[in-house]
Amino acid sequence: MRAVFVTTNESKRREAQRILGVELERAAPDIPEVQSLDFAEVATHKARAARKALGSPPYPVLVEDSGLVVGAWNGLPGALTKWFLGSVGNEGIIEMLCGGDRGARAVCALALADTHGAVHVFEGVIQGEVAAEPRGEEGFGWDPIFVPQGTRLTYAEMGEDKHEDSHRARAFRQLRVWLEEKDGQEA
Amino acid sequence: MRAVFVTTNESKRREAQRILGVELERAAPDIPEVQSLDFAEVATHKARAARKALGSPPYPVLVEDSGLVVGAWNGLPGALTKWFLGSVGNEGIIEMLCGGDRGARAVCALALADTHGAVHVFEGVIQGEVAAEPRGEEGFGWDPIFVPQGTRLTYAEMGEDKHEDSHRARAFRQLRVWLEEKDGQEA
Repeated sequence: MRAVFVTTNESKRREAQRILGVELERAAPDIPEVQSLDFAEVATHKARAARKALGSPPYPVLVEDSGLVVGAWNGLPGALTKWFLGSVGNEGIIEMLCGGDRGARAVCALALADTHGAVHVFEGVIQGEVAAEPRGEEGFGWDPIFVPQGTRLTYAEMGEDKHEDSHRARAFRQLRVWLEEKDGQEA
Repeated sequence: MRAVFVTTNESKRREAQRILGVELERAAPDIPEVQSLDFAEVATHKARAARKALGSPPYPVLVEDSGLVVGAWNGLPGALTKWFLGSVGNEGIIEMLCGGDRGARAVCALALADTHGAVHVFEGVIQGEVAAEPRGEEGFGWDPIFVPQGTRLTYAEMGEDKHEDSHRARAFRQLRVWLEEKDGQEA
């Protein structure tokens, strides 16, 4: 089996290929994302649009959307996390919490458009909290401000350990199970 | 001349028709909006998509996008204002300002897709600030927390006076001037 993973990030592709155990090509068509706080909704639209942009290829098209959900903010920033990062940054997100409840979750939605155009969604979630200040040099995006439950380290301080059980790893593991079951049915 | 105004809000249509002095029909095709902080970008995409959804009609298709830009937030919430309102509400926006600089501007972008499919954008801006607490019963959305420069009233406390010189009125007046010049050229 082969599939195409829509991402501009080569390290994401490698990591995904390692977890899934299938050959993943990388493609980066320019797909505008729809406005929503909901990861699954954004990823689903993106998977459909990417499949169309790639000319409905004879193999599955995989996309990812991920971000941070602050409990006290009732869904924000959610699938709009990148706009928070791009405008106020990690420091700004902490300032906007204004000393209130820092409970948050990290979410990754994978959407796979199959060769019939049907979209299957797999969501991985890690509970945790926003750090009191950005810490750590590894990773990217909001990694310096997310502390998963059960540790005091931010994603950006965990290095490779992050990949053991991140929101993204959980979503990819669900997809792997689904692919294995599907292979079993087809065999 | 006639045009179609894509809005679910009948009072917006009436107001727009009054300012423009042209007959506006209302249509409400279900158009997902693209993720961006930028009003003109969101409105431009929406105008193209709406024109397509309406079957490229032989008259202009007009759409609107509006919201609040908080100076201290470097573009946020911008064209994503409705997601802030839907999750944390007006009270939440004030809390997230955390006692900091409340300077803000109200922005309305109108995008008109003409009968050739070209899109023309008109933007109206009003400087002001976010109120210390929501006040007033008129209007909708973030009207209770926006205080235009030169007054102490929120949009929601101004009643009909709001329409005299709002971000939306300014955008529609620009469009009116453009339509009049265009009419002059064609005559």
